[in-house]
Order: sequence, then structure tokens, then C-alpha cells
Amino acid sequence: MKPSIPKGTRDFLPHEVRRRNYIFDVIRQHFHRYGYQPIETPVMENLSTLTGKYGEEGDRLLFKVLNNGDFLRKADTQQLAAQDSDAVLPQISKRGLRYDLTVPFARYVVMHQNDLAFPFKRYAIAPVWRADRPQKGRYNEFYQCDADVVGSDSLLYEAELTQLLDEVFAALGLKAVIRLNNRKILAGLAEIAGHADRMMDITIAIDKLDKIGEAGVEKELLERGVDAGAVEVIKQFLGVTSLEKVAPLLQDSEVGRQGIAELQEVFDRVGKLTNRLEFDVTLARGLNYYTGCIYEVAVDTDAHPGIRMGSIAGGGRYADLTGIFGGRDLSGVGISFGAERIYDVLEELELFPADASEDLEYLLLCLDEETLVHGFDLLRQLRKAGHNADLYPEAAKLGKMMKYADQRNAPRVIIIGSREAETGQYSVKHMKTGEQEKLSLEELLER
Amino acid sequence: MKPSIPKGTRDFLPHEVRRRNYIFDVIRQHFHRYGYQPIETPVMENLSTLTGKYGEEGDRLLFKVLNNGDFLRKADTQQLAAQDSDAVLPQISKRGLRYDLTVPFARYVVMHQNDLAFPFKRYAIAPVWRADRPQKGRYNEFYQCDADVVGSDSLLYEAELTQLLDEVFAALGLKAVIRLNNRKILAGLAEIAGHADRMMDITIAIDKLDKIGEAGVEKELLERGVDAGAVEVIKQFLGVTSLEKVAPLLQDSEVGRQGIAELQEVFDRVGKLTNRLEFDVTLARGLNYYTGCIYEVAVDTDAHPGIRMGSIAGGGRYADLTGIFGGRDLSGVGISFGAERIYDVLEELELFPADASEDLEYLLLCLDEETLVHGFDLLRQLRKAGHNADLYPEAAKLGKMMKYADQRNAPRVIIIGSREAETGQYSVKHMKTGEQEKLSLEELLER
Repeated sequence: MKPSIPKGTRDFLPHEVRRRNYIFDVIRQHFHRYGYQPIETPVMENLSTLTGKYGEEGDRLLFKVLNNGDFLRKADTQQLAAQDSDAVLPQISKRGLRYDLTVPFARYVVMHQNDLAFPFKRYAIAPVWRADRPQKGRYNEFYQCDADVVGSDSLLYEAELTQLLDEVFAALGLKAVIRLNNRKILAGLAEIAGHADRMMDITIAIDKLDKIGEAGVEKELLERGVDAGAVEVIKQFLGVTSLEKVAPLLQDSEVGRQGIAELQEVFDRVGKLTNRLEFDVTLARGLNYYTGCIYEVAVDTDAHPGIRMGSIAGGGRYADLTGIFGGRDLSGVGISFGAERIYDVLEELELFPADASEDLEYLLLCLDEETLVHGFDLLRQLRKAGHNADLYPEAAKLGKMMKYADQRNAPRVIIIGSREAETGQYSVKHMKTGEQEKLSLEELLER
Repeated sequence: MKPSIPKGTRDFLPHEVRRRNYIFDVIRQHFHRYGYQPIETPVMENLSTLTGKYGEEGDRLLFKVLNNGDFLRKADTQQLAAQDSDAVLPQISKRGLRYDLTVPFARYVVMHQNDLAFPFKRYAIAPVWRADRPQKGRYNEFYQCDADVVGSDSLLYEAELTQLLDEVFAALGLKAVIRLNNRKILAGLAEIAGHADRMMDITIAIDKLDKIGEAGVEKELLERGVDAGAVEVIKQFLGVTSLEKVAPLLQDSEVGRQGIAELQEVFDRVGKLTNRLEFDVTLARGLNYYTGCIYEVAVDTDAHPGIRMGSIAGGGRYADLTGIFGGRDLSGVGISFGAERIYDVLEELELFPADASEDLEYLLLCLDEETLVHGFDLLRQLRKAGHNADLYPEAAKLGKMMKYADQRNAPRVIIIGSREAETGQYSVKHMKTGEQEKLSLEELLER
């Protein structure tokens, strides 16, 4: 029987792991630089922690872990015989795989609040699981990279997270557009249109402006029961791309004015960025729990034409993270990088540094059994001196060994015959250029 | 309802994550240095991959993941009504959480053999899951740190893995004893004792010498049906601590002589080590699949008296890793670090470097709202210059802010009042010593 792995999961070859780690390392380095601290939570959480936090669809997409031992013993036999999966589920499973890093974070903050200093800044780079139907670019097991701060409503955090987004993409060599909006501006817009209670319908519709155009948004608004007068008001907002121009439209809404003021303060604090920073009144982000500033980052298609990719990072401010677990009311703001999409973009644009695929420095090839002993000792000394080095473990034909060097992507090869072993003068061959140089042991170790 | 996490799983606070990462980083750095390449496999594997690989007990300890959707729909209603867990299991679950990193590695090598260069050297540092009864130091979710090479039977790999074990513990500042034996020596011993077919019984008994003494081993051998004459032969081996002295005892066993020769070659190649390297004829290691050299590492209690801890690393040579998945016959050798135990030992001995707990360099505290804007700009510049820096996000009372600095374990605090903001001369307070120095922005950034 041929072995296989579950649908929607992946194995990674060494060069893929290295490239993934390159992205994670850049993100992690910036999280550290900005004072975000690493925490870790279990892969398995109690289903009581996870269920009901992601809506009905989310509950269905949770991977549930079967109770151990004789798991059916305590289950209701009638419900079993009736094959009533929903009724039996809580009797045979009490744990599940985490669905995101946010709910475990909220649970963590409540459980450890006495051990944490607030404002508490944490990051996590870790896999999550969703039983989605697998498709191109969507997996059942994938990584999230989140940074959040809870316990402060200071807008300085919105500003620093904008800077952090900017610097991570600058470090990755990827030109990005960072779009900002504020849920309070969207609330104000709904209020001005006379539909304060329909904010979700309105934002869902205008969020689609990019895809369906102004006429499409108008149609969708009408279909969602927004009256024609309100649609006219809303249309005024759609072309607006600056805070200055949207401010007069919202002057009669207190929440709208507040949103403008918050966003203005963030823009004022952010300073000079490498990437484009834009105000986007149509930006809504799906998650209901955002209450203030919201972010979304996309590839800058002016700089990288032809890249078709949705959001590569996003986030926002939420009023109360921990209430669901009985925690005190803690405001927070966070961002999340879409590492899997960033990987695809960097690959398509060939933006991975050459050395992100292999970190071997030297590969030693020995021409006979005697020099193999010599080679192994040289290997030991190279490693002791801190070099990443390896050796082909037998004296095989040179062609076979050079093929191995190629497969290992070794940048430098040292071929050791009896003359090299005697004189202690080694030929180092640079595989990219074909150049050779003669180096003594001391010279090699000093590199 | 108070939130909780499943029994046998853990949350980690930031300083714990950093200390764990310190260990993982040291191990990973040495894996790289020795040419081992990172691979990653999914957390979820098909149960067909996992089941039957760890014995009956292992199968019971696998965490199984429930099929998604209406999972009971296709299950046998009679078996359900009879609460026959064993019969129902394969009908409602086809995936499980990995139990170790070795079986997934074997599966990986078979699936990707055409993409790999042999000898293939891989490492993995990743969590595994076992439904053991949780107890002190034993968890349901814990990390393994494995390096293996497959596709070569060169003893140079046994030698380099010994060097790698030595250097990792040297880098961690932990004095260790590395014990080596060879399964072929144990086979030879059984043969000499006239019980070639009872090698497992014999090795299980003599493996306990440390715990139960020579009289205990003798009793256990007799209980296991080894005759008194054979027990006398075996007792000759128990006091022997050098290869030279065991060789004459095994001269009539071909496999025994081969084991001696292999081990001698490893000792010859290894060179000078930092830690003690010992031959231990009683070392057996539990796993049946080892066929050649075996390793076990313990804390050196001469150097660290009072430390009670079993094996902190181990490994060995196996003749055929991939046969279970229909792969071609590939010999391999590997080692595994017990990171959780190493953590406990480093903590008990206070061997964690001071900077393994916090990587923040500067924390900025601002005395009023105006200087907060100034402080945030200084923060941005420090970060731009590559420093890990943070800011208390409001102008609170100094005592409150200093308490936060303490909790964050900040090594340096910069207090910014209106005078500092005006003059651009900053007081940097070193939290450990209480010393203060005045630095200009340029001086700060140049650090």
C-alpha cells in the first residue's frame, strides 16, 4: 500500500522549510523589535473553549479529537443507533484542534492574567486547523502569524502596528499597499444614510466595490433593502480617498467624527513609510468583532504588475477580547500576516534570497578510503570553528559525489585526494562560478 | 465558566517560550552545522500510517481525529448500538495526531524518495502527541528533536552523531556522559551464553543493572528462564567497562566481533570530546528496531551532583526504516534530544543564560502627553536602527511605569520628560545596577 497524507495537509522538502522559515524569521524578528513577546498554547484545546466562537460554519469546520479508550461506553445507545452525529458528538469528543490563534489567546489572557503585565503584547507563529474543502492555496493545516496588544486603547499601538506591517514587507523586498479604515467611520456612514442599524449590510456591500464596481454596489445595497435615498448618500463616499474629504460628509455623526479623529491621529503618528499608506473608506474586513481601526495589506500592483493575490496581512482594533471567557473588559488591537500567500508571492516574484534555500557552507568529497579519515577530521575542525559542513561518507566515483553536491545545493566543494591530505593545501571549488582556490587549513578555519 | 486546557497540555509564558527556544535554537544550530536539513510533516497523519507501528499499547495511545460532517452516517448501526468502540473506530476516524517523528519520517522518505539526495540527512523539532496518563514531567503534547541520516551504513555517521551530542551539551553548559553500545555485542553475548534466541530477555535484564544491581539482574535472568550456566557467562560481562576487555569474551561470536569492530571504529573516529564517552555493555535501549550502535546520554552526576534525571538524549542505528511503507531497504542512524528534560535540568542548575528570558533592549517611559509624541518618535528610530524597543503607551505615574518595566524584565529604561525632549539628551537607566548615563540620540542609535 502506498503511503499518503491527509487531504489538505502538506509535507515540506528542506528548501521549502528554509524558505518558509525565512518568512517566519523576518516576521518574528520584527515582532521582537516591536516588543511583542512569544507565547505558546496547546494544539489541542477543549471543545468548550472553541465551540460557538466562530459561528455555526466555524463549529462545523473544527477538527474534533476522539476521547481515548472505550469512547462509546458512556454514549447514549439510542442516539448511537439513530446515527445522530450532533447529539453523540459531545459524548465522545471533548477536545479539538485550534481553529485560529485569537480565541486561544483570549483564553490564555483570562487564565494567566495575574502573571501578565498589561498592556500585554504577544505574538504567536503557529499552525491552525480548519476542515475546509481543500483547494489551491487553501489547506486544512496552515500557519498564522499574529501580533496583538491587549489592555490599552492607546492609538500609538495602531500607529506602531502600521509601522511594523510596513517594515516587514520592506524587509521582504515586497512593495505593499497598506489600507486603513475605521469601523466608526463605517458606523457614521450608516448613520448619515439613515440606516444606523444596517451597518453590516452596508459595509458588506461597499466592501465589494473593487470587484463589482459602483453599479454593483448600488444594486447590492438595494437588494439588501437599503432605500434609494440612502444609496445616493452612500455613493458620495465611494469615490473619496482622503480623510480630509470624508470628514465634511460625516460632520453630523458623532461616531463618524470620532473615527475620523482616531484615524487622523494614527496617520499623524506613523511617520515616513517605505510602502504606500492609504485611507480606504470601503475597507470593512469580515470579522464582526472589530470596533475601531482596521487594516488590510495587499501587494502593490503598480510595483509588481500581474500579481493576483488578495490580502497578505490584516487586522484591527476590538473592544473586548476576553469577555467571552469571563475576563475583564480588555480592548486590544492586532495584526496577522498571511504567510502562505506571502510565500507564493515571493516565489512568483523570485524575491527569496539565494541563501534562504541552503545553509551548508562546505561539502567535502574524498577520493579514497585513506583520505576519508583525513576528510572526516577536517570536517570536525570546520564544524568546531562554526562552519556548516558535511562530507560524502565514502570514497565514491567523483561524478557521483559531484552529483550529490549539486543535489545538496552545496556552494563550495573541497575535494580531498592523497596530495591534499599530505600537503594540507585544499582546493575549494565554488560551485556557482566554477572558480577554484587553494587554501590551507588555517585559512579555511579563519574564513 | 472558567476556561481551562486539556489535561497533559500546557500554556507557556513568554519567558518559558524564550527558554525553550534557547534549547531548540542550540540544537537546531548544531543540526545545521552537521549538515542535517529541516523537513516538516503534517501534525495529522492518516491512521493507516500510524496504526500498528508502535505496538498495541501505542495504538491505544494515539489521539484519533473524528471524521468531519455527519460522521455516524456510514457507521454500522448494530456496532454503534452495541457500543463496540474498536469496531466503530475505523468507520468514524481516519486521521490521528503523530505519535513520534520517526514513523512520519519513514513515510516521508518513501513518498519523496525521488526528490531526496541519499544519504539523506534530516532533522525535525516538533510536537508529538500521546494519550498517556499525564503525570509530573510527562505530557500528552510534547516536543521531540530528532536528527537522522538514511541511505548509508557508514560508521562515520555514528561518529559524527557522537560529536554532535557532545557539542550540543557543551554549548548548553551541561556536563554529560555519552554511553555507547552495539546491539551486535548484545547479540554476541546472548550467543556466547548459549541463548542466541533470547537476546531480548537478556538485554532487558542487564539493562536494569544500574537500578537493581548484579544480584537483581541474576534473579531476573533466572526468572526469564535463562539457565544458571548462562547466567554465570553473562555475569562475566557486567563488570566490564572497556572494549579491550570485552573483546576476548566475544572472540567466538562472529556477530560479537563485528559489534566490537564497529564500536572500535566509532571510538577511533570521534576524536577529543568535551564530555565523557563510555562503553556500556549493559546499555540496551528499549526500541526493538535498533540493529547496530546505540547511544544514551545522561547528566554527569560527578560534575552535577544531586541531579536525578534519566536519559536526556539517545539514539542508534536501524537496519531498515522504510520497509514498513514498501520502501527500499535503507539503513539509518539517528539521535533524539529530550528537550523537556533538558529544560528541567538547565532550570535546576540555573544554566539558562540571563538573556534567554527577555530580548527587549530599551523601554521608554514618558512623563507627560507631549513627551509621549516625542518618545514614540524616538522609539521608531531605535527600532529602525535594529533595536528591540518598547514604550509605555501613556504618561502614567512613574511608579506604575517602573513596575511595568520590572514586569517586562527590561534591562534599560529611558525616562523622557520635557527637558529630555527639548535637549535630546536621554538618561538611560540600567535596571540591574541602577547606573544611569546620559546619551544623545546619535549615541543611542550607534550602540
